[in-house]
Amino acid sequence: MSLDNIRIVLVRPVYGGNVGSVCRAMMNMGLSRLTIVGPQDHLDWEETRKMSHHAVELLDQRASFATLAEAVFDCGLVAGTTARMGLYRSHALTPREWAPRLLQQAAAGLVAVVFGPEDKGLSNEELALCTQIIQIPSSPRYLSLNLAQAVMICGYELYVASGAFQPVSERSAQAPSELRERMFDMWRKTLVDIGFMKDDKADHMMMGLRRILSRGKLTVNDVHILMGIARQAQWCADQLPPEARSSTPSP
Amino acid sequence: MSLDNIRIVLVRPVYGGNVGSVCRAMMNMGLSRLTIVGPQDHLDWEETRKMSHHAVELLDQRASFATLAEAVFDCGLVAGTTARMGLYRSHALTPREWAPRLLQQAAAGLVAVVFGPEDKGLSNEELALCTQIIQIPSSPRYLSLNLAQAVMICGYELYVASGAFQPVSERSAQAPSELRERMFDMWRKTLVDIGFMKDDKADHMMMGLRRILSRGKLTVNDVHILMGIARQAQWCADQLPPEARSSTPSP
Repeated sequence: MSLDNIRIVLVRPVYGGNVGSVCRAMMNMGLSRLTIVGPQDHLDWEETRKMSHHAVELLDQRASFATLAEAVFDCGLVAGTTARMGLYRSHALTPREWAPRLLQQAAAGLVAVVFGPEDKGLSNEELALCTQIIQIPSSPRYLSLNLAQAVMICGYELYVASGAFQPVSERSAQAPSELRERMFDMWRKTLVDIGFMKDDKADHMMMGLRRILSRGKLTVNDVHILMGIARQAQWCADQLPPEARSSTPSP
Repeated sequence: MSLDNIRIVLVRPVYGGNVGSVCRAMMNMGLSRLTIVGPQDHLDWEETRKMSHHAVELLDQRASFATLAEAVFDCGLVAGTTARMGLYRSHALTPREWAPRLLQQAAAGLVAVVFGPEDKGLSNEELALCTQIIQIPSSPRYLSLNLAQAVMICGYELYVASGAFQPVSERSAQAPSELRERMFDMWRKTLVDIGFMKDDKADHMMMGLRRILSRGKLTVNDVHILMGIARQAQWCADQLPPEARSSTPSP
């Protein structure tokens, strides 16, 4: 699977908590290869483990390198993230634009997504090692994302683009017309019999009910629930003494 | 602007750091209305302020309510997030699916996006107040996202869907064919004159160069740089003494 070939590279991270949050975000999004570049002694490891939560295995399996060049030496596509303007900005792509390309490359070999230090971002020398520059959409009022949040958005776009997630809505099909129509027939009869509407107004009233029930998708299960309600109301109507049936109050 | 009408509602948050990170994520994505439901005395406010970073104004401007019903009483569409399976799962939508609909509603009035407590998520009673259920795509190996990460992904989808972000790539147009062709003409002459290729192989070699330079977009600026290189190499070639011109080594 392509996601296994994607290396998330943190260059000189400052805060252990962020490194831990990165691990959790990666595992949430099906990524497993964490690489850290630069010294790690200053990191608060207790905080790192705490924030990684159930993803501490990614932390334990991390690779470590002294320089970015070493960390990506075996990677084809190398994508670097930056919030800064300037030299590289004019050919930056958004995560949504590059996610499919990156996955395509990852199907054939290792690729890297590189994130700079929290305070300064990647240096120009480090950006020069990158074959792609990524800019995450953010508000001009506050451009700079937290490190783990930046990893999350890139991971999320990769995970969605990978097709690994099956949207629930696809699995829960819309009820077929025939079933819906049987349900509406039941409601029509019941609404007349309980005295909600007279027979000559029924067509008009049913158009209103159809409109209400057609705003969203109706699944087979939904239709069965609505049939159950109609059936039970019909039972009530059938209990009415004959003299009450003709004198039900209008709503 | 529609983003101003979107209320982010945190129900009984447990960790102050998460609340602060939510503020930063909101401001990154152009959102400004934070609402907290339930008691707040237990929150570590120092941590909250620290993690909100430059978005502390959202914290100071937050609204507070005792119950979710009060927090959303004036909202039309109310979208609740859940990672849990069960009753509501079958009609959950992804953030990408609901973002345009939510923005459409927000153009006309207030809407809410609701997030449950870190440990337990929203209760069934709270989910029942929601008109939409959101499920964020995540790996079956680790479904549950950190609270601020969940807010970030929803905010990111809303911000992208709002069209507030103009991708840089749109502003930096591909160079027109005429300019590209002038550049290739310059390179063709230069590569012959510096002795890189003989005239009879030039067409073939130029196909290779075209292929290399056509893999990505070439902007006007890129073409000017490439022309500058050719021009300078041509200058060198023009300095060659006549006897050297016919005896340049083949590459």
